[in-house]
Amino acid sequence: MPVAGRFITLEGGEGAGKSTLARALADALEARGHAVDVTREPGGTENAEQIRSLLVSGEPDRWSSLSEALLLYAARVDHVDRRIRPALNSDTWVICDRFSDSTRAYQGAAGRLDRDRLNRLHQLALDGFEPDLTLILDLDPAIGMERTRQRGEDATRFEKQDLSFHAALREGFLDIAAAAPDRCAVLDATQPPQELAQAALAVIDSRLGS
Amino acid sequence: MPVAGRFITLEGGEGAGKSTLARALADALEARGHAVDVTREPGGTENAEQIRSLLVSGEPDRWSSLSEALLLYAARVDHVDRRIRPALNSDTWVICDRFSDSTRAYQGAAGRLDRDRLNRLHQLALDGFEPDLTLILDLDPAIGMERTRQRGEDATRFEKQDLSFHAALREGFLDIAAAAPDRCAVLDATQPPQELAQAALAVIDSRLGS
Repeated sequence: MPVAGRFITLEGGEGAGKSTLARALADALEARGHAVDVTREPGGTENAEQIRSLLVSGEPDRWSSLSEALLLYAARVDHVDRRIRPALNSDTWVICDRFSDSTRAYQGAAGRLDRDRLNRLHQLALDGFEPDLTLILDLDPAIGMERTRQRGEDATRFEKQDLSFHAALREGFLDIAAAAPDRCAVLDATQPPQELAQAALAVIDSRLGS
Repeated sequence: MPVAGRFITLEGGEGAGKSTLARALADALEARGHAVDVTREPGGTENAEQIRSLLVSGEPDRWSSLSEALLLYAARVDHVDRRIRPALNSDTWVICDRFSDSTRAYQGAAGRLDRDRLNRLHQLALDGFEPDLTLILDLDPAIGMERTRQRGEDATRFEKQDLSFHAALREGFLDIAAAAPDRCAVLDATQPPQELAQAALAVIDSRLGS
């Protein structure tokens, strides 16, 4: 019988390979008999996807970091209440491409919204709810941006930010990992996708004992 | 020479006559030589109007009160930073149809989001920023709902709520006025529009000495 659902988040800058890793982990966990729900933020519910569309379109300075953080938590509350918690409560594992750490890194570290304000926002919105495990995909931002260019998609608001923004973002994620070592693990995202997935599974096995 | 800009908010349930009063007050204050900006919430900036459209459409239970409050403050931060504060700083009076008290009454008192959480949200989003004067238009909700029906507009999500919601809303506004008597004044919204405007101007004169 599968163990109760666990909540795993994948974090990192643009082009780090989070969505590819999410699918690989879902396949591996399903092969072990777990029910798995793969989702993403901002988004994951119909309401939250509509908030996402306000966030990803427009010019880089469209929103202040504070308005962005409030929009992200409005979407996150909907996603947690209506998808993530119900899944976990029915023994489904949830793999989420981005979660609160992205808000801390994008709006906080790179967007200069102060950490205390973000912590207060997280607490009032989610009462301290956090993932069981967070995998941070670490990558030189120049490589990540080159990967997103090669995908040939239109750049989102965040991809349009300059390299200093993305460097601050990387530092932000590494600071989060250092401050919460029991919850977070940093993975080298320059590895080929299969090796990255193996490394991620090894962390899941050792941390969550699946 | 006009005194510096003042921030006046109009609050109350559906059909209380806030937008009619806003226009009448703007005319009277402009006749006295003030620059006046009439705005509304949710909305008042292009970004905030897009958030508004997410809030007013759909079924009554579309959003949780907490997600609603976060969306409203995302819009409010944009509105305050980009329209209200700049206007006040350039000696323009701002008359706003709904502001934070509507969140306290709709999502708090009627929507059962706890007061402490809303106070923390207000503080982290606006650092305690409040109107100079709040006029609360008090009306039996049955009369207010009948007025909105007679306008012949499609009902918004909030107008679709039942009468017990609107009764809680009215109590919520009266509680706010009782808790902040220096900032708030309650006006009888059953008065004809011209008398209501005269009563509102008398309060503005005595409280703000314009």
